[in-house]
Amino acid sequence: MAGKDLPTSPLAMPLPAVPPVAGVRLGVAAAGIRYKGRPDLTMFEFVPGTTVAGVFTLNKCPGAPVDWCRAALKGGKARALVVNAGNANVFTGKLGRDAVQATADAAAKLVGCKAKEVFLASTGVIGEPLPHEKLTAALPALFGKLRDNNWEDAARGIMTTDTFPKACVRKAMIGETEVTIAGIAKGSGMVAPDMATMLCFIATDAKIPAAALQAALKKGTDASFNRTTVDSDTSTSDTVLVFATGQAKHPRVPAEGGPMLRDFVKALHELLLDLALQVVRDGEGAQKFIRIDVTGATTARSAQRIAMAIANSPLVKTAIAGEDANWGRIVMAVGKAGEPADRDKLSVAVGGTWMARDGGVVPGYDETPVVAHMKGREIEITVDIGLGRGKGTAWTCDLTHGYIDINGSYRS
Amino acid sequence: MAGKDLPTSPLAMPLPAVPPVAGVRLGVAAAGIRYKGRPDLTMFEFVPGTTVAGVFTLNKCPGAPVDWCRAALKGGKARALVVNAGNANVFTGKLGRDAVQATADAAAKLVGCKAKEVFLASTGVIGEPLPHEKLTAALPALFGKLRDNNWEDAARGIMTTDTFPKACVRKAMIGETEVTIAGIAKGSGMVAPDMATMLCFIATDAKIPAAALQAALKKGTDASFNRTTVDSDTSTSDTVLVFATGQAKHPRVPAEGGPMLRDFVKALHELLLDLALQVVRDGEGAQKFIRIDVTGATTARSAQRIAMAIANSPLVKTAIAGEDANWGRIVMAVGKAGEPADRDKLSVAVGGTWMARDGGVVPGYDETPVVAHMKGREIEITVDIGLGRGKGTAWTCDLTHGYIDINGSYRS
Repeated sequence: MAGKDLPTSPLAMPLPAVPPVAGVRLGVAAAGIRYKGRPDLTMFEFVPGTTVAGVFTLNKCPGAPVDWCRAALKGGKARALVVNAGNANVFTGKLGRDAVQATADAAAKLVGCKAKEVFLASTGVIGEPLPHEKLTAALPALFGKLRDNNWEDAARGIMTTDTFPKACVRKAMIGETEVTIAGIAKGSGMVAPDMATMLCFIATDAKIPAAALQAALKKGTDASFNRTTVDSDTSTSDTVLVFATGQAKHPRVPAEGGPMLRDFVKALHELLLDLALQVVRDGEGAQKFIRIDVTGATTARSAQRIAMAIANSPLVKTAIAGEDANWGRIVMAVGKAGEPADRDKLSVAVGGTWMARDGGVVPGYDETPVVAHMKGREIEITVDIGLGRGKGTAWTCDLTHGYIDINGSYRS
Repeated sequence: MAGKDLPTSPLAMPLPAVPPVAGVRLGVAAAGIRYKGRPDLTMFEFVPGTTVAGVFTLNKCPGAPVDWCRAALKGGKARALVVNAGNANVFTGKLGRDAVQATADAAAKLVGCKAKEVFLASTGVIGEPLPHEKLTAALPALFGKLRDNNWEDAARGIMTTDTFPKACVRKAMIGETEVTIAGIAKGSGMVAPDMATMLCFIATDAKIPAAALQAALKKGTDASFNRTTVDSDTSTSDTVLVFATGQAKHPRVPAEGGPMLRDFVKALHELLLDLALQVVRDGEGAQKFIRIDVTGATTARSAQRIAMAIANSPLVKTAIAGEDANWGRIVMAVGKAGEPADRDKLSVAVGGTWMARDGGVVPGYDETPVVAHMKGREIEITVDIGLGRGKGTAWTCDLTHGYIDINGSYRS
């Protein structure tokens, strides 16, 4: 990180046009926290009445902002979000707690709300005190510039080792009313989400009770961020927050959500998956995007664990970087997952071509289509365990020299 | 692998002189299984009455030789060991089972024993049928050349991506009698042992009942191989076998072992740890050898899991490759282990210098000695969890461009 100019990931997606979301104003500033000459401070302001839901890292050593958000979430209301890049405010002890309090106080004063209605997120270096006076000094001018059509700047403002900004928009119907869901995410390394991952901020003009929003978010992150991995390392700062401003004119949604939210929940889940896969596409050093489907496991949970074991195997990931369809390593990864598996019932396909079936090489197996598939950017691996009906999917990227380059000199 | 000439690991240890072990004859041959112009077939012959103990991979997709050894171990007796390098005979279905049977039959015929007294091990490429006719064709001439003073050749004959041969010798007293324990090991990648790792073969002239030998081996591998990792990938072929020829003249050892074996068990455990650490020193692409001590965890098991989480973190390992004492990543790895931890009680030292204490940077922390330590070959990390008295230790190596080079083109 640290100001290095990394080339844009070859797997990058173009940034979609993100329309304003009624009730949200946002903006960025260069506070000089760590980077020079680029925005590193992002602020969202939400209208009164905005509800909020969040999921956070399960890492046992979370950052001070994660502690802050967990506590603030109990109120279910949000008026502001302040995000800085370059310093994670993790493992900073009392200084870290002072920094989140001071930042929340400063933002609350500008917005005219309680400090507990301000949400905070920080990513970057761990263990260095956050120079929060730089944040609080930059906030008043930033607040004065907030506007509603500014999602692209925000997507760039939260980046650290990211090589491209990540955003996604979905429309959904609640009753007869169309609502908008817009979100941005960042993340590139230390990505192995456990409940949530990295930073992802979503806003919608829908009016959703906090409990229903939380349930939809939890289910959605389990099916998206929690099924991706870049490097198996679970961050201390993972945060996904959804803000619902309630500006759309649709019938009242009950606290438990229910059928009226079906289309909204579907759209939210699509958006979460889209953003999660953009994070994988910007995995540190990634040259190939990998989807792993596991079928025939004893349960869905077992299938998911096997898929993640394959996705986290350095040997599988380096083989794919070398464009080698080394299915022996896939078999190894299935076996190390610790889930029920029978070597002699196992089948493996790459790019839709079955290479191994029922515990051995497919007779007369022709490597040609597999070799061609491995040269592409999008790699598909399918493993059938042959024991049951459990299915799972994981997404990851390859492990390349780029990862070593980026992480061998992160702080230098 | 595949015949590439890798430079010798900078962490290599000189090969010790290994004396004959009474009751053991051994030798190597070039069977041309995969490599050209180097020994790839190794054979041990043991005198009648030799007892055997073994531990094997917990990977759910083990190789055919592992299945064979598990079954053969029930007899507790061994007369021969045949090891090939270059082909793992894993995921080879019925062909794999036929190959182990044919190899065991051929060796048994030469030695004059039952097939079930022949132990087998194979490492190398997964998923390609083992050309066992090459093994059985080479065995008679190899058998004719077996001799007792040949451990160095055997240590080289079992290598695959290893860059240096690994051996160790210990002496121990049983009663008033000195016995010898000699062992060799191989392993460099796909090393994240779960019960045992890679290939390790040990012989002693002591006369130890199989049950006592098995108990000593199990405890020893738990405290050695099972505390090391190169790349978090658990092999399908991990095998540790100990053969006791019973040629030494010491008082009878009871089946349960007991106090008489105390010195022997201590020496065996030292030898297992020595060989396990040699495997780590030959970790694929390794430039630095890393020891991680965890203290103050709630239990020893918890401490060990935290130590392994640090040892398996790609971000910790790449930071060390970059000579960066990035203790923030160590904190992250502690937190992702899922074990009890309290960020604000955590302390981290590198090379004996405490950088962080009780959840924050040590006031006035001077990085100078840490920077000097990080430039060395041997890196020491200590983490105190601050919650209890549980201790654990793990050993690993750094993650470098060399690992990517070796594994991005393994089969090419």
